[in-house]
This record gives sequence, C-alpha cells and structure tokens, in this order.
Amino acid sequence: MTKSALQIARAAYQPKLPKALQGQVKAVFGAPTQSVADQEEIKKLFPNTYGMPLITFEAAAEAQNLPAINVGVILSGGQAPGGHNVISGLFDGLKRLNPANRLYGFLMGPGGLVDHNYKELTADIIDEYRNTGGFDIIGSGRTKLEKVDQFEKGFEILKKLNIKAVVIIGGDDSNTNACVLAEYYLAKKYGIQVIGCPKTIDGDLKNDQIETSFGFDTAVKTYAEVIGNIQRDCNSARKYWHFIKLMGRSASHIALECALQVQPNICIISEEVEKKDMSLDDIVTSIARTVAHRAAQGLNFGTVLIPEGLIEFIPAMKRLIAELNDILARPTSTHERMVDQHSWLLSELSKENAELFASLPQNVANQLTMERDPHGNVQVSLIQTESLLSNMVARKLAQWKKEGHYTGKFAPQHHFFGYEGRCAAPSNFDADYCYSLGVTASSLIANGVTGYMASVKNLTAPADQWVAGGIPITMMFNMERRNGEMKPVIRKALVELDGKPFKAFAAVRDQWAKETAYVYPGPIQYFGPSEVCDQTTKTLKLEQE
Amino acid sequence: MTKSALQIARAAYQPKLPKALQGQVKAVFGAPTQSVADQEEIKKLFPNTYGMPLITFEAAAEAQNLPAINVGVILSGGQAPGGHNVISGLFDGLKRLNPANRLYGFLMGPGGLVDHNYKELTADIIDEYRNTGGFDIIGSGRTKLEKVDQFEKGFEILKKLNIKAVVIIGGDDSNTNACVLAEYYLAKKYGIQVIGCPKTIDGDLKNDQIETSFGFDTAVKTYAEVIGNIQRDCNSARKYWHFIKLMGRSASHIALECALQVQPNICIISEEVEKKDMSLDDIVTSIARTVAHRAAQGLNFGTVLIPEGLIEFIPAMKRLIAELNDILARPTSTHERMVDQHSWLLSELSKENAELFASLPQNVANQLTMERDPHGNVQVSLIQTESLLSNMVARKLAQWKKEGHYTGKFAPQHHFFGYEGRCAAPSNFDADYCYSLGVTASSLIANGVTGYMASVKNLTAPADQWVAGGIPITMMFNMERRNGEMKPVIRKALVELDGKPFKAFAAVRDQWAKETAYVYPGPIQYFGPSEVCDQTTKTLKLEQE
Repeated sequence: MTKSALQIARAAYQPKLPKALQGQVKAVFGAPTQSVADQEEIKKLFPNTYGMPLITFEAAAEAQNLPAINVGVILSGGQAPGGHNVISGLFDGLKRLNPANRLYGFLMGPGGLVDHNYKELTADIIDEYRNTGGFDIIGSGRTKLEKVDQFEKGFEILKKLNIKAVVIIGGDDSNTNACVLAEYYLAKKYGIQVIGCPKTIDGDLKNDQIETSFGFDTAVKTYAEVIGNIQRDCNSARKYWHFIKLMGRSASHIALECALQVQPNICIISEEVEKKDMSLDDIVTSIARTVAHRAAQGLNFGTVLIPEGLIEFIPAMKRLIAELNDILARPTSTHERMVDQHSWLLSELSKENAELFASLPQNVANQLTMERDPHGNVQVSLIQTESLLSNMVARKLAQWKKEGHYTGKFAPQHHFFGYEGRCAAPSNFDADYCYSLGVTASSLIANGVTGYMASVKNLTAPADQWVAGGIPITMMFNMERRNGEMKPVIRKALVELDGKPFKAFAAVRDQWAKETAYVYPGPIQYFGPSEVCDQTTKTLKLEQE
Repeated sequence: MTKSALQIARAAYQPKLPKALQGQVKAVFGAPTQSVADQEEIKKLFPNTYGMPLITFEAAAEAQNLPAINVGVILSGGQAPGGHNVISGLFDGLKRLNPANRLYGFLMGPGGLVDHNYKELTADIIDEYRNTGGFDIIGSGRTKLEKVDQFEKGFEILKKLNIKAVVIIGGDDSNTNACVLAEYYLAKKYGIQVIGCPKTIDGDLKNDQIETSFGFDTAVKTYAEVIGNIQRDCNSARKYWHFIKLMGRSASHIALECALQVQPNICIISEEVEKKDMSLDDIVTSIARTVAHRAAQGLNFGTVLIPEGLIEFIPAMKRLIAELNDILARPTSTHERMVDQHSWLLSELSKENAELFASLPQNVANQLTMERDPHGNVQVSLIQTESLLSNMVARKLAQWKKEGHYTGKFAPQHHFFGYEGRCAAPSNFDADYCYSLGVTASSLIANGVTGYMASVKNLTAPADQWVAGGIPITMMFNMERRNGEMKPVIRKALVELDGKPFKAFAAVRDQWAKETAYVYPGPIQYFGPSEVCDQTTKTLKLEQE
C-alpha cells in the first residue's frame, strides 16, 4: 500500500485521552434516569434497559482482573472522519483490560452481522488505520437492525465467535436500534452487551448528554477550507456569485458552522425557512436583493451557502411534492398526460401548487416529476438546489433590470460539497475524541453494562479534562411518528433558532451580506501551534459558553 | 478584518530564499541568446530585446548604491496561489535596495494600467497579504496588453507616477505581451523596464528555462486533497463511481499530477487522446471496460480524473464542432430548423459528424448548438464533460448488460474542481518560490534590464540552493498561428507523452485500474515535518530527475 507523506507522519500521532482513561479506570454510577419524554411508553418498551444510571469514569488505583472476552464492532451509515480511531481506541482499551481480548469487525455495516461477514482486527491491521479517515477498515452500510430475525441471525454468529459485546458506531437511528438490540438480547438472556457510539458529520446527534457527534469537526473544517478558497477567488476575480450546496439532509448545522467559519454573503438555514413559512420566492427574492444591493456598490460577486435538505423545509414545496406524489400515483393514463405532462399536471394541481409548479425552471419541474424512487415518490435529493436558486435569482434580476432597478452583472458558479469531507483524515479534535470514545466503549464493556452510548464531555476544555462515561440510550428517547408508526427514537437535533450558534450568525449576517467580510480558514493542520490545530467548532464553543 | 487562526499564524512565516538573494546581490551575464525557433523573424520583431544574455544572481560583498525608483506591479489572468508573495518579495527587495523605493499596484489586471487605476502598496498593506492566497491585494483581470494605444495610455500614468519599471505577473500570453511592451518602451526610449513573472496553476508555462510556474504546486495539492478524500469515501462506501473534472483548459498537467499523487482508477490525458486520434466512443469504451472489469471482481466503485479541456482534444469532436459552427452561422432559416433543430442538423452534417452528433446525449447535443458565444461559436467550456462521459458509459454498460457480459451496478457522482485551488494559501514551496521570484524581479530592476522574466531554478533542491536569475523573454519565443495570424509567443507546454511524468503514470495505470491503489495525500501542511511540508510536485521531481 503506497502512502502519502502525511499518512506516514500521521500514523505516529498518539491521540490525547481524558485523564480518567489514561490508566486504570473505575465506573461511578449515578442516580436512575428517565427518558426525555413519553416515559411510560418507553419504560414499557424497554423493561430491561430503561432507567439505568449515568456512568462517569474516574481514575482507579488498581486494575480490574477480567477474564478475556471477544468483542464485535460495526460501522453503520454514512462515513464520518474518526471512525477508525474509535476502533483503534476500542482495540487498545480492550488489550489493556486483558491482552487476550479479541476484536472482530463485521463487514459493510450491520448487514455484516446478519450475513455473518466479519474479520478479526489484529494489531497489524489496526496500526494501518490509526488517525486515518474513511470507514474502509471494515466498510459501512445502511442495513437497519430492526427485526427479530436479524437479531437472531446476529446472535448465531456472535455465539459462534464467542463475542460478549458489540459496539455499534452510528447516527441517531443506528443508536436507537443498538438499544432495541440491547433490550432484545437482555430479555432473551443471551449475555451480549450492546454499546453505541455517536457518529455523524451532520451534527444532528446531540442533546443534553451528547455535546457533539464525531466527524462533524473534521467535515466542516474541510468544507470551510474549500469554501474559504472559493471566497478568496471570488474576492480576487470579483465577477462570480458562487452557490455552494453542503451535505446534510435534515439539519443545517454544517451550513451554519461553515458560515460562522467563513463569513459568506448569504447562508440559508432550512430550520428558519420552515419556521417562518418562507416560500421559494421569498428565498429567491431575498438572495436577489442582496445581489442587487452589492451590485449597486460595484460588487458583482458573492457567496451563498445552501443546506442540501432545503427544499424539504419549504412548506409550500412540501405541499407541492405531496400533491405531485398523489397525482402521479393515480392509475389514470390520459393522452394529455403522455403528450404534455407539464400542462396536464398544471391542470390537475390545486391553484396554489399549480402556481408554484409553473414558477419552477423547466429542468427542475422535470426532475420533480420524471425521476421517482421505487415507492413512486419524487426524489428530492436529485434536485440541484444550487442551480434551481441561481436560475430563479437570475430570472428575478432580469425582471428587475427591465424595470430599471438593477444594473449589475450576475454570473453564477455552482458547487456541492459532501464526499470531500466525510472521509477526511480526522482533525486532532476528532482523532482525540474518537479514540477516547473507543476507550470509553471498552470501559463500558468491562463494566458489564448494555444499552449505553459511549460519552465524552467537556469537549471545549483540553483533552485531559474531558469527562468520559456512559449514557443509557433510553434516556435520550422520545416517541415520534416514523413511516406512519409511533416509535421510540433519539430526537434529531435541528438548528435551534434561539440557540447561540444561530443567534451569533443572525446578529451579523446583514453586515456580511453588504460588506465582504470573508474569512479564510485554510486546510486542517495537524502539527502547528495549538490555536491552529486543536480548536474545535464555533458551534460547540458557542453552545458550551 | 476577521482572520482565521491559520491566517494569523501563517502571516509570521518567513519565506526561504536562495543563498544568492539573502544579502547583497550581483548579476552575472552569460552569452547572448537565441529564440527557440524562428530566430530571424523574432529578431526582426524584437530588434531591441532580442539576443540578450541570461542572467544569474550571485551573492555580492557590497551593496549597489542606487537612486530611489518607483515600480509598478500587475496581476494578469487567472488566480494562482502565491501571487501575494511575489508582490511582498518584490516590495522587500525594492526596500532593501533603497528604502525610498516605492511600489504601486495597478488594479484589476492590465486594465488598471490602461485605465489608470492604481494604489500605492505600503508596508502595512503588504503585511496583511504575506503568505496568503488570492490576488485580492490589487485584483486581477484578463485585458490583453497588445496595442500601441494601450502602451501609450499606460505610459501616461507611468510617467505621472514616475514609475521606472513594471512587473507583470502572468501566464504565457501575459509574459509574451510583457516582452512586446518592453520592446515598445525601449524602442520609444521611454526609460521604462518591463519584467515578467511565470504564473499559472495549469503548469503549462515551463520549458528549458522555467522549471515550473508558480501556483501549480498549491493548486494540485488542494485538488489532490479533496480527490484523496473522495477516494477514501469511495473505498469505504464501495458503491459509487466518481467522475472528477479538473480545471485546465489546454494542458493536462493538473490531472496528471493529481493522478500521480492519488493513484485513481482512471485518468484521461487529453494530449494522449489527441495523439492517438481517439474518438469519444474509444474513451467511453475504455472507461466502461474498466468499470466492467472491476464489477466482475465485486468492485462497483472507482474514480475517473478528467481534464477540463478534453473535448477539444478529441479530433472527431473538433471536426464536429467546426462543422456545427459553419452550419449554424449560415443565414438560412428553414421551417425544419426552427421546429426540430436536432433532426435538421443531422440532415445537414457530413456522415461522420452526423453519426457522432446522433450518439451524444440529448442535453449535450443541445449545449453544443443552443448556447454560443458572441462570435457564434459553440461554447465547449459549458459542456459538462464529467456528466457526458458517465452518461455514455452508463449507456454502454446497459447495452453490455443486455448482451450478458456485464452484471454490475453503476452509480456515478460528479465533481468539478477549479475554484477550490486557485486561491488556496500557498504551500511552503509556492510561498518560498514566489517570494524568491519577487526578490529576483527587484534585482533585475536594479540591474537596469528589460524584457526579462524572473527565474528561479534548481527547485527540487532545498531553497537556499535555488538559483535565481533572469531569462530574456525572446529566448522562449517561437512563431505560432493565433487567430489566423503568425505571432511570436512562448510555446505552451503540453503534457509530453515521452516525458517522465506521463511515462511514470502510463507504466502503472493498468494496475491502478484493476486494483484499488488509492493514496490519500491529505491537506497541505505548513508546520510539520519537512517531508510533509516542503515537498514539491511529483511532476517537477520526475522532470528534474
């Protein structure tokens, strides 16, 4: 395997650990816990794992004397920087507990457990992946562990490999399912612990117990690097408006954090659009106004950050999409529909929806109706929101030009960043945080608990002051409707409009729109001064202030 | 101005200089020179600046005692990392020669000279831009300095500001024009020196005298970082083929260097396509074969690097575009043309071109015919080559599937990187190289010469062993047809198929296609170990071997 100079140098990095995890560890158990809502229902659904205490780890004088065990690990869902460090932390933690402990990785996600695809992770394998990005050590996948037959299939291989604990590294859904699995194995007295780990670049797995999910720090820094570079280009060439879409389907944390880092002219926050019931035209008009205002000052350039999931947060678009799904699902097939679907749909849609549909650029209207998923639903993710917006802004500006109140030039460029950051080599923060989460998971296993998520807190302090422990997953549950059914789930954290990060942004965004206040974060640094290398996100700092 | 932690830390970086430029400098003049070709014609066109000697700078014992002068500087053409360091090197060099020397920047490119837009660059301004990316200190522009009235307009402001020398930082065209300007001012005895500086991320301004243009190093490293991240994602998710287009209209140096750094499954080199007279179908078939071969091994993922200018290097596409330009320029306007332009064009095109046109996806055919530039020409740059290729590959694979010799899955993702790298903060190499070029330019000015390009050689050695000097620009000239006229120009350096970088790539590419040999360069590092921070490109190393 050929390696870059940075890969080689970075392999030697020793992640920093909380003081409590640096030597022998003991668990301190707190008082019983409650779920954040719907306590009775959740208690009923999780009779064995409900109400368990919070755990905090402290330094211990003596080693626990533990028999050797085998442990399994699973990467679930989208990639996030630092996954390999969770695994290496888990490995090192297990080996410190007992050198005879063994670690197995299930391949390509939860499906590997069900389908019995696995490999043992030995020291030579682990050493190849320390402090690297990606999930390629064992791969990841999106199979959902939800059904009893999957749990039973999983148990077969766990029994065969004599595995006593499984660590599932994933987002909110995967951790929810980890708890369901923990409850099932406990109820069945299978003697298998299940531990979760909070992963997702989207930043939407956080709450009173979880300060941030891992990978968010590195991913946003990578996006902020390239956006900063584009802004410098923008400010040098002074002739383009860059429309930059950022990964993250449901929450706008990534866009907001990037905005705080780079100070763009415009950043749209989906949660605000929904809250204020903004229409597509409201958004377009607001962007066009900023373009026109800057043009009047001779500034025919700028940057617009757009969260990937925006379309689904525009209430009017949601209604249009719902009606389109209904109409297109009808069994009728008229001549008109075949010859001119666009006109046919306009005649079928309700007045409000027809007006919105008619206002969309032709290619977007086509995307909305032509390409549907296997369930017949419009595929919102295929819509190129960045082009849609720039297209409609251009149209609006052309109209204003005709009316005489805009005289600038508008030349858009489009970008979409996602895959560029999900597998970046983890920043020092993520390398340390993930490694600490892995060691924490090994300590939770050593303490015999199940249905817990590994937790590391106090993250804005230096790493040795971080606080490691475990959170009963049921504690984070509430009941929510998912696919028509009420289910116990971890509440997804959207951007809070009265939260400090959004308020910090909202306080200055008008100034950023008018002036050119760009900041250029540059690439992630691993070796330089601490203020360059070891700072975490502005979101986390503001939230913990 | 808000600054990122890296901006602040990086401002303190002191660029490394060649030994000869570290103290007092003396010029050593070599033998008279000749242009690389067409000596007689070029001598006739440049009677005053032809045949001048090469200059090498050496350390001197004593300072020259020089009267104070004013100097102008211009950034010309596309942004490239390090431009600000050329200017700060020039500034520091001038101040060392005589603290009373002054530097003026002409704004937004050569147009600033013609239109008399300028500002004085004082120490406090310069200090804000040291080691930063972008050209925003004075902006850049694409006005070509070619005409006598421009030269005369420029002279007006130079005379008014008492400027005795102008430094033009640009690519091959801008340096060609710098020499034309030098010749003109010398012939007119205006007493104004003109000095060029070799800039372009494209890497196509290089020859026996110029080892590399500045900015290439940083730009390719930035692209290689994000491509590496995508490859890690690709190898983790194992379900996408990423089609990645890279900036660079005429030469494929960027794509080739990125390939050498990241080891993708496929990298297309335009110069090879042209040389081998490959058709679009040849390219598509070759990609599809690799996709199918990997699919047969269960590897339904991969990466393809595509140079931006590819389409114009496909001889058959060039012929098609030429005929389309002709047909669409005809004054005729038939009913058929209006109703169904596609069918009409198919009936008008020659057989070979009609077949190729018919084979293109509809949207590309539309792009080729609908959107034309002000001269009525097809706008090749608007064609989304990355989608065109993936689209045609998908079609070919579908056909093979029907025929039973392909059974994989093909899910493409598309990327285009350009603006992400042109204004990145310069790598240590570019920071040092550019600063050295700036100091070199000041020494050329001190020695009273004109029509020279600043030159720093021996670039694969440590910076203190670099060799600074000046190259008579005429030495790099040959006559080429440009817009129907024979002109003296610096030959553009395309990728040489018998050059070491291409041969190194060609020797291993079959292996990279079949295996997954990805390398992950990671982000540019400024502070770490020298093998991580101070290495230049593989292209330069291979060429200088």
